[in-house]
Amino acid sequence: MTEQTGQVRFNQRERETGGKGEAAAIETELLKDYRFGQQQLIEIWGQACALAITKAYPLSSLSKKQPTVLVICGPDQNGSIGLVCARHLRIFEYEPTIYHPKRSSQSLHQDFTVQCEKMDIPFLSYLPTEVQLINDAYNLVIDAMLGPEADISNIKEPYSGILGTLKQVKIPIASVDVPSGWDEEEATQDGIHPEVLISLTAPKKCAACFSGKHYLAGRFLPYDIQKKYELNLPDFPGTDTLIEL
Amino acid sequence: MTEQTGQVRFNQRERETGGKGEAAAIETELLKDYRFGQQQLIEIWGQACALAITKAYPLSSLSKKQPTVLVICGPDQNGSIGLVCARHLRIFEYEPTIYHPKRSSQSLHQDFTVQCEKMDIPFLSYLPTEVQLINDAYNLVIDAMLGPEADISNIKEPYSGILGTLKQVKIPIASVDVPSGWDEEEATQDGIHPEVLISLTAPKKCAACFSGKHYLAGRFLPYDIQKKYELNLPDFPGTDTLIEL
Repeated sequence: MTEQTGQVRFNQRERETGGKGEAAAIETELLKDYRFGQQQLIEIWGQACALAITKAYPLSSLSKKQPTVLVICGPDQNGSIGLVCARHLRIFEYEPTIYHPKRSSQSLHQDFTVQCEKMDIPFLSYLPTEVQLINDAYNLVIDAMLGPEADISNIKEPYSGILGTLKQVKIPIASVDVPSGWDEEEATQDGIHPEVLISLTAPKKCAACFSGKHYLAGRFLPYDIQKKYELNLPDFPGTDTLIEL
Repeated sequence: MTEQTGQVRFNQRERETGGKGEAAAIETELLKDYRFGQQQLIEIWGQACALAITKAYPLSSLSKKQPTVLVICGPDQNGSIGLVCARHLRIFEYEPTIYHPKRSSQSLHQDFTVQCEKMDIPFLSYLPTEVQLINDAYNLVIDAMLGPEADISNIKEPYSGILGTLKQVKIPIASVDVPSGWDEEEATQDGIHPEVLISLTAPKKCAACFSGKHYLAGRFLPYDIQKKYELNLPDFPGTDTLIEL
């Protein structure tokens, strides 16, 4: 672990550009110049998220009889990562249930959906409005809903309603990359309070306001990109693909 | 680990179909019915191969001063998996060098090649015919050359020449899925002798003739496929994505 571990985030260049969109710029560079594929990146990130969940909530630590997990997936990339995460959690012998209120028309997103359906992972057709039902049925909620790409100044239904529900649940929430409803830049005053945050590529600026368990997941970033964006990523131990910050 | 661990392989149905092509049938089903993508599968397999190498040859165990590894990549899928393996080995702080004598015209294969080039992994323009140079320069060779898809009754140059060299090298060889030049069905009498075999999805029939260190890598196969093909896969420990058989 390097000395900078506690401060890992988009730094110098972020300040120059105002921060917003640095993660998007890196992703564009990975796709265009480094010729990564979106499918490949989403698989890497989703698997790393699942591993982070197994670290934060090992099977043996779950309080309910069944290792149930509710995965709430949005319509964009964050949701696709949630779908991959759910599939790997099933392989790790968790029992995920997916709530995926708006299916994307993007074929990649549809493929990730079919992969989950063919793994016999159940999909909820609606989210119970009675919060106690969620508290009783699941050990935790994975929030893969809005992510950094969302326009949080204008969150529409069904997501605004789901956020209302998530603010009331008593079971822990683990958020993927950016807690839904938070700005990439900063925590939202009256937002959800995840217990775990799983940062992808590098922590977004809002992670500085996060006081829970914080993982950096996905160990694949080319060294030149790390250098160019001055990411100061910590040294991952051994062959681990995630690290607790 | 299940009782069947020692016998994991394509079994019942393989005997019915003569074995050949069972792995190909599974892959077709994953791509067509389960809507996996080739890019996604190759990423999963390549990463799992890299992890197997880190288990079989931990950095601390390497005898040479530098953690050098020669990765020989063929023109088809086995070669793509080798490219992904090399990239992840670089992330795990090995120093891979790739020998990739015939570039594929397939765009996916080209993308995996660019990903390695952009990671500053060196590519050899030819393989030294003086075997001692290879023994001196590298700790081991990863054979991602021909794989199960190859027609071994008619191995052409440059691959026949490379096999001649690999039969003479004194450093260990780790083969991906099927040792190059071996039939998917059985060991080839005068073939190469890898120290490590990394089976993907499930061991091919020839793995029964293999007496070295044998890993099963890539933990993602949907349960229905495992059942349909009676794969009797062992239980992977914890969240490991590979297991030594």
